[in-house]
Amino acid sequence: MGQLLRVMNFNVSSDGIAAGARQSLERPFGLDRPERLFAWAGATASWPMRTDSGGSRGLDDYFTRDFARGIGAEIMGRNKFGPQRGPWRNHEWRGWWGEEPPFRTPVFVMTHHPRPSFTLADTTFHFVAGDPATVLERAREAARGLDVRLGGGVTTVRQFLAADLVDTLHVAVSPVRLGSGLRLWESPEELLDRYHLEVVPSPSGVTHHLFWRR
Amino acid sequence: MGQLLRVMNFNVSSDGIAAGARQSLERPFGLDRPERLFAWAGATASWPMRTDSGGSRGLDDYFTRDFARGIGAEIMGRNKFGPQRGPWRNHEWRGWWGEEPPFRTPVFVMTHHPRPSFTLADTTFHFVAGDPATVLERAREAARGLDVRLGGGVTTVRQFLAADLVDTLHVAVSPVRLGSGLRLWESPEELLDRYHLEVVPSPSGVTHHLFWRR
Repeated sequence: MGQLLRVMNFNVSSDGIAAGARQSLERPFGLDRPERLFAWAGATASWPMRTDSGGSRGLDDYFTRDFARGIGAEIMGRNKFGPQRGPWRNHEWRGWWGEEPPFRTPVFVMTHHPRPSFTLADTTFHFVAGDPATVLERAREAARGLDVRLGGGVTTVRQFLAADLVDTLHVAVSPVRLGSGLRLWESPEELLDRYHLEVVPSPSGVTHHLFWRR
Repeated sequence: MGQLLRVMNFNVSSDGIAAGARQSLERPFGLDRPERLFAWAGATASWPMRTDSGGSRGLDDYFTRDFARGIGAEIMGRNKFGPQRGPWRNHEWRGWWGEEPPFRTPVFVMTHHPRPSFTLADTTFHFVAGDPATVLERAREAARGLDVRLGGGVTTVRQFLAADLVDTLHVAVSPVRLGSGLRLWESPEELLDRYHLEVVPSPSGVTHHLFWRR
């Protein structure tokens, strides 16, 4: 089947919004109470950031437990790494992901501003310029035959969708309306010309949207 | 969390039947058209027996792709290995699973009749006597920290449920009524004193039942 590019566990509101327009160090999503969008994931046993042994093992857990399976690299936009804009002023702040980032693979951060690669625990961050196809090529090489996760944020997902490089998407739609912000879509139907779609309501309240290429 | 014992992708009819009473070499399930119970799995991209690159990547695929993730051993009843009863008459017939069995771990076949272990591709079959707890102990050791899959058949699943050794179950209920045969349950509600349950209808027509310990 080759190496897929997969959007996984991507969270949006019922009106398609994934982040606020104004991001800061304190507000990585630029949203009030962003946990309204991702609480379903945090409640599962397999949530990658979980530190205790609890959590649910129902439907939602199948999505979080799939996070690392068969994934050899991640691509993320700069805003998923940090809130800085323009040239890097210092290299001491090493991203939002703590000393043990959950990725455990090479991660390619898309930015026009160069910065040396560095490693935190099992994750190595590379900072790369280039269009989506070029970055994907690098990530695929690093993934050594495994799939590549497209980690977001929303602007990055939209870029890769526009370039028609995304093979599968799992989008969790939360029952909260945000009104304004950065939008993944007006409606999931926008993708139906290129993708199959299954819509799966979860007992937790989110509705999983599963897309794969026609 | 320790090592879980997991029933995965286990198929029953709407009236809880998983197999017919009379199994033979030609009819491993002892049922007419057993594919009515497992066609949903065969349609997915991640079905372990798939040999082409097609298949769906919707909800059902999350269940088949989970088959091997984090699993270090399987336990199966003798009837899942073959239709023979009593002492093994010869060792030449090596099970229903072909030259490349999909398990790719040690497999513990429960039988009172001894037979030497053998390896086919990445799978080694061991033939073990003993009660469920004893067999589980051996499988856990072989799994080296990973989970153990309880592969069935239905009599074996019932034995382990009776011994309260099962941690999670995924049962796919097909919309076909069989009337008679070997039964997993009269109703899934029988397990609610010990397990949480989520019931997830799939677009394919099966209804996934997900149980995990209270």
